[in-house]
Amino acid sequence: MTVRPVPVTSVPRWDDEADVVIAGYGIAGAAAAVEAAHCGAEVLVLERTGSWGGAAAMAGGFIYLGGGTALQKACGFEDSVDNMAAFLNVAMGPGADADRIADYCAGSVAHFDWLVQCGVPFKAEFFSEPGWEPMGDHGLMYSGGENSFPFNTIASPAPRGHVPQMSNKKQGEASAGYMLMKPLVETAQAASARALYDVRVQALVVDADRRAVGIRARRYGAELFIRARHGIVLATGSFAYNDAMVAQYAPRIAGRPAASVEQHDGQAIRMAQALGADLAHMDATEVAIFIDPQQLVRGILVNGRGQRYVAEDTYPGRVGQLTLYHQDNTAYLIIDSDAQDEAMASWSPRLMMRPASWVCETVAELEAEIGLAPGSLQATIAAYNDGAARGEDPLLHKKREWLRPIGSPVGAIDLRESTGGFTLGGLRTSLDAEVLDVDGSPIHGLFAAGRSAAGLAAWGYASGISLGDGSFYGRRAGRSAAR
Amino acid sequence: MTVRPVPVTSVPRWDDEADVVIAGYGIAGAAAAVEAAHCGAEVLVLERTGSWGGAAAMAGGFIYLGGGTALQKACGFEDSVDNMAAFLNVAMGPGADADRIADYCAGSVAHFDWLVQCGVPFKAEFFSEPGWEPMGDHGLMYSGGENSFPFNTIASPAPRGHVPQMSNKKQGEASAGYMLMKPLVETAQAASARALYDVRVQALVVDADRRAVGIRARRYGAELFIRARHGIVLATGSFAYNDAMVAQYAPRIAGRPAASVEQHDGQAIRMAQALGADLAHMDATEVAIFIDPQQLVRGILVNGRGQRYVAEDTYPGRVGQLTLYHQDNTAYLIIDSDAQDEAMASWSPRLMMRPASWVCETVAELEAEIGLAPGSLQATIAAYNDGAARGEDPLLHKKREWLRPIGSPVGAIDLRESTGGFTLGGLRTSLDAEVLDVDGSPIHGLFAAGRSAAGLAAWGYASGISLGDGSFYGRRAGRSAAR
Repeated sequence: MTVRPVPVTSVPRWDDEADVVIAGYGIAGAAAAVEAAHCGAEVLVLERTGSWGGAAAMAGGFIYLGGGTALQKACGFEDSVDNMAAFLNVAMGPGADADRIADYCAGSVAHFDWLVQCGVPFKAEFFSEPGWEPMGDHGLMYSGGENSFPFNTIASPAPRGHVPQMSNKKQGEASAGYMLMKPLVETAQAASARALYDVRVQALVVDADRRAVGIRARRYGAELFIRARHGIVLATGSFAYNDAMVAQYAPRIAGRPAASVEQHDGQAIRMAQALGADLAHMDATEVAIFIDPQQLVRGILVNGRGQRYVAEDTYPGRVGQLTLYHQDNTAYLIIDSDAQDEAMASWSPRLMMRPASWVCETVAELEAEIGLAPGSLQATIAAYNDGAARGEDPLLHKKREWLRPIGSPVGAIDLRESTGGFTLGGLRTSLDAEVLDVDGSPIHGLFAAGRSAAGLAAWGYASGISLGDGSFYGRRAGRSAAR
Repeated sequence: MTVRPVPVTSVPRWDDEADVVIAGYGIAGAAAAVEAAHCGAEVLVLERTGSWGGAAAMAGGFIYLGGGTALQKACGFEDSVDNMAAFLNVAMGPGADADRIADYCAGSVAHFDWLVQCGVPFKAEFFSEPGWEPMGDHGLMYSGGENSFPFNTIASPAPRGHVPQMSNKKQGEASAGYMLMKPLVETAQAASARALYDVRVQALVVDADRRAVGIRARRYGAELFIRARHGIVLATGSFAYNDAMVAQYAPRIAGRPAASVEQHDGQAIRMAQALGADLAHMDATEVAIFIDPQQLVRGILVNGRGQRYVAEDTYPGRVGQLTLYHQDNTAYLIIDSDAQDEAMASWSPRLMMRPASWVCETVAELEAEIGLAPGSLQATIAAYNDGAARGEDPLLHKKREWLRPIGSPVGAIDLRESTGGFTLGGLRTSLDAEVLDVDGSPIHGLFAAGRSAAGLAAWGYASGISLGDGSFYGRRAGRSAAR
């Protein structure tokens, strides 16, 4: 089915219409719906699946916010707009868009307040343990390595992972992302935003001036034409599950989709590209490494040459990126039996504990078992233990609290090919969420947000960036489209 | 000036026309001109500068060919199509396009013969020294690390860097790339291909069926409309000098253009994108490291953690890529005074010899001078020297001939921020050089080759790949457009 633009002159009829038509009812679509409806626009959301939610509803629910939000203050943390921007400019790069980061940081406190106004619950409690997400219903956590090297030398550490509260959180129950989505969708519905489900958007309808005026879609095998009187918001998510696009634009994440949804087929990106829209940061990805941070911090991570390469107590997504991209997706966590026992004692069903792949009495034996170059791991551990005994890590600056010489028996967890992730690139947009063409001009009537659009991340990542910029620029898109 | 497609109905007049109109008179444009003219088409080449040549005429002139070319045989090397493909599938990846590589390798021997028929001279002499290019007028050289680890374990080493011969090669004289371009352009001219210089292509002219039928251009401030009766070939080079495109698509090479020409502004990519053309491998780059390989092989290269990360005797472009992308553009070459003297003795004006930034009596002093973590460099050199004394490099498998324990005095060459390169991504094309839209369908009448198009490289590189696939698919484009 072609994504080529449909001339409005060839549209046989309009099956439905609204002031603002939104493709996709995930985080960006929901935020756009709320804001457009609050601007007085009649809103119609087209969703591919049978319900609202998108990737957001299945996610950990982190929203990356700071600069001194009410939640940060309630948990006793200081932060500022400049401090947040200083961190993001480094952590989202190389190649991060400083203007977008400045814009996002400046609006971050107000965006948190808006989420609260929409009914998103946050509990003023800080979670201080290493982990991908809080073990309980805590509302705030470090989610980007802000308090670890090298970021703790670049900006004052402040936690910015804001997590919606789940009541009676239990294994298998709703994710925190659901608790973000539900109030937003209810707010949109209360403002009379309509939704049509099981609708697959196919192509944009354009007038003679190349203005986007509608969408061609399919529903239960039938063709639908939906008219947008004021504007269209594209918010169908990433291209992580479009194998052809991944091969062309982000081949190094090929075959490793994770933490995303199969609906992320890049459709909105394709529809706008067909109209001459420009792209940005298509090679950017989030990368997870499949091991629990409770283990990571208690061991040392070495590459295929037996060398350390990252402070083990930083954001595990950063560990994943550096492992996949810089170390040929090859890593081993060296951890002694005491440390492994200690990590296991923190066990909960939500964690990703991994057993040791090899256990030996000596490092020399372990080195041989893994197949590392003779002496390589022995030198690495000798140097680490020497520093750890003094409470120092001169090579990588892991925090003192996690430094302890590695003893015997010593094990290794095989972390080869243990990463996965999702794509972060997409349509190039203005700060008002206008989709830009290759001339740098807005395509009239067309807006995008969420992972259909390039956001804050150019290379690096922090948990909460996607729901953060998706909701932030989703609102902008809704407001712009309502005009 | 907009790159948006011009409807043919709004073209005021045709200022010139031909069967095949080619934008850009570098390697791809010249190859396309020859082939289209030989197919009987009337050919017109539009070139931005005052003369033919492009980046090719300023380049080292390598053409990456193999599978048993006449030159390989004359120099006593065996190769096969499968062997060449096995190398390229690894060396051009991750993410390399296996179909394109198979196609290129299968046609490689015949392509060499075609170049010879066009009058490109090759001297049947092999250059065996480390270096970016031959010191004399040798015709063949290893140009991708084929005989180094890990590639020498993946395929049988065969040199594939084919270099046109310069008569009386002297410093400052014509480059080998000029000796490639001149015969091709003369062949095109002999076949009646015309050229118009100082013409800047601006946008494509399209008919109601979205077929490309012409080009809007500028010459000396005036607007020109050029009609293409059969087809258009886009061959204006890379986007390495378009800062905005680099920031969006390949930010990690931003600010480091090298070995390219300022005319590489991405214009053809933009013109086709505006019509809905798809892209591929926009993040791929060639990366040079600014030091002579005669020094590289005689030292050991360490990163900011004092660790070795690449066999120093591999393709220096690979060293550049791994340094820029995997080591935060931070490297130091550790080389003792004897080795430095030996490298300097191989001095010629064409080399990029670098003096030592620091020289010390002991490794411990050098480590402190550089500012590396205490003990890190000492452990690295102890391990290297231990192996080198036995003629082994268990960590990185540098060839035995370059292994020698590092002695005293010991120096280091500061290679931080010492890389530069150019972009390799561009329009997505079929193997017939048709420009593909986001549906995967050919855009009728539109073809592309050279660095306007994505070629063999997805991540890795070898010298000669750009002139290789530029000339190979330039010919395909010329043939396809002539139909």
